Amino acid sequence: MSILVVGSVAFDTIETPHHGRADEVLGGSASYFAVAASYFAPVKLVAVIGEDFPAKEKDFLASRNIDLEGLSVSKGKTFRWTGRYHEDMNIRDTLDLQLNVFSTFSPVLPQSYRNSPFVFLANINPGLQDGVLDQMTTTPRLIACDTITHWIEGARKELEALLKRVEMMVINDEEARMLSGETNVVRAARKILGMGPKTLLVKRGEYGVLSFSPNSVFAVPAYPLEEVFDPTGAGDSFAGGMMGYLAASGDLSEANVRKGIVYGSVVASFVVEDFSLNRLRTLTRDDIDRRYRQFVSLTEF
Amino acid sequence: MSILVVGSVAFDTIETPHHGRADEVLGGSASYFAVAASYFAPVKLVAVIGEDFPAKEKDFLASRNIDLEGLSVSKGKTFRWTGRYHEDMNIRDTLDLQLNVFSTFSPVLPQSYRNSPFVFLANINPGLQDGVLDQMTTTPRLIACDTITHWIEGARKELEALLKRVEMMVINDEEARMLSGETNVVRAARKILGMGPKTLLVKRGEYGVLSFSPNSVFAVPAYPLEEVFDPTGAGDSFAGGMMGYLAASGDLSEANVRKGIVYGSVVASFVVEDFSLNRLRTLTRDDIDRRYRQFVSLTEF
Repeated sequence: MSILVVGSVAFDTIETPHHGRADEVLGGSASYFAVAASYFAPVKLVAVIGEDFPAKEKDFLASRNIDLEGLSVSKGKTFRWTGRYHEDMNIRDTLDLQLNVFSTFSPVLPQSYRNSPFVFLANINPGLQDGVLDQMTTTPRLIACDTITHWIEGARKELEALLKRVEMMVINDEEARMLSGETNVVRAARKILGMGPKTLLVKRGEYGVLSFSPNSVFAVPAYPLEEVFDPTGAGDSFAGGMMGYLAASGDLSEANVRKGIVYGSVVASFVVEDFSLNRLRTLTRDDIDRRYRQFVSLTEF
Repeated sequence: MSILVVGSVAFDTIETPHHGRADEVLGGSASYFAVAASYFAPVKLVAVIGEDFPAKEKDFLASRNIDLEGLSVSKGKTFRWTGRYHEDMNIRDTLDLQLNVFSTFSPVLPQSYRNSPFVFLANINPGLQDGVLDQMTTTPRLIACDTITHWIEGARKELEALLKRVEMMVINDEEARMLSGETNVVRAARKILGMGPKTLLVKRGEYGVLSFSPNSVFAVPAYPLEEVFDPTGAGDSFAGGMMGYLAASGDLSEANVRKGIVYGSVVASFVVEDFSLNRLRTLTRDDIDRRYRQFVSLTEF
């Protein structure tokens, strides 16, 4: 089954403490999600790019089983973000942000996208995320969303309205604390589950992921890596691998969602091994399955 | 099989952000370790207390299958520590430290302790830890040790000498970084395994434990709790539960060490639910086994 993703396609400039920098490389939540998900299932992408977006990057996305009918080109430049990671790579500063064509982004779904059974609303204004759902002609089997502290602070009402329509939320621990007003992650999760989602996935960077549903908690560590080049996109790649696996199998049982979470963790562990989506340009499905088996031996007792 | 533990018995005064304070309650690395291990195997304790140590606390320890022949009473007061936890309970400040009788502690093993098959050297001066091993008359099946940044900075030579004699080291992530000079935990572990230990357990507080051996990595999350009253002693209780399980089974295979790590995590998850060792005063082995099964469902996929 196919997955619809709505989010950003961007150029990132990344500074790291030990692995140098990368200038104007492919980034954006929808790019990471789509390429990660494409290992498992066909993806339909909705995003906006500027006239400066190179044909070779569009060709790269198209080569990955990603439908680009919903990738619109607007007059102007593509969204750009510049960030610097600290020695502790869980922390980063935004040095520059140029929304460019993204500032007026209002997602319109092509007709062929409107019956997608799996929907991922990557981080954009919650009002726009809500508007995407209004365009669906059939009820999706699974709607998941991400958000950031910017919207939790600035668009809480719209976000709360959205959460009533969403089965799964995928956010990091800082966002979970801010959204719930609770410092303890278990209490935070319980409050957020009370806002609508049936499943909350809390991303904790190098410490892995916690998954909460009303009757179950699942904890999976991050794959321990000797080198983390660039954590950018790890969370969206996690979501992409996880939903890709669910869409491919069509099985939304608790046991299968757990497997999906591990597949997502596996894809994310590869993404951070290089800048941008570079690692995914050579990564194979066999590589993913091999590391999945290593995850089993990492965690079994 | 029995376990020898050498460390501190103390009185702690604890301030917490949300759960009030506790004054002069039973603490110390050897107390936590011994009571945690006593759920699984007989324990022989070596530590020093002052003349002010109440009979009822000695009776409590004795009631838990803990041999107190090695608990010596010195003229003066028992070791006292006062600490304050931050909102983020992974962080604490030491407000006051009175070594008292602990300042001249030089562990002497009773004859009946010298052939203990399992030995845990809790955090004391590495020179003293080394001296404990010199007193053994038979080669233990497993020697494990803890240490703190104070000794890594101030007694590195003695610590490095000790590590050549130790099979297992149990430290937290900050200590692993300082000992190895590496910020990445995988590289830190590889360096520390090069110093002597065959297994390194890295305690990460609410994020769980990573276990490294030359050919294997094992990751276990912490049990997600809604309330953490007092994290004091979690690390020593973890070590106690883990070694207790290994001593009871006598099985040092990789698979069994993993089970031991989970049992240690289970005991630690109870300890933090109340001040001091209070939770262990009522906790039963059945409670432990029940939460062990919850750990299985927390992590299986």
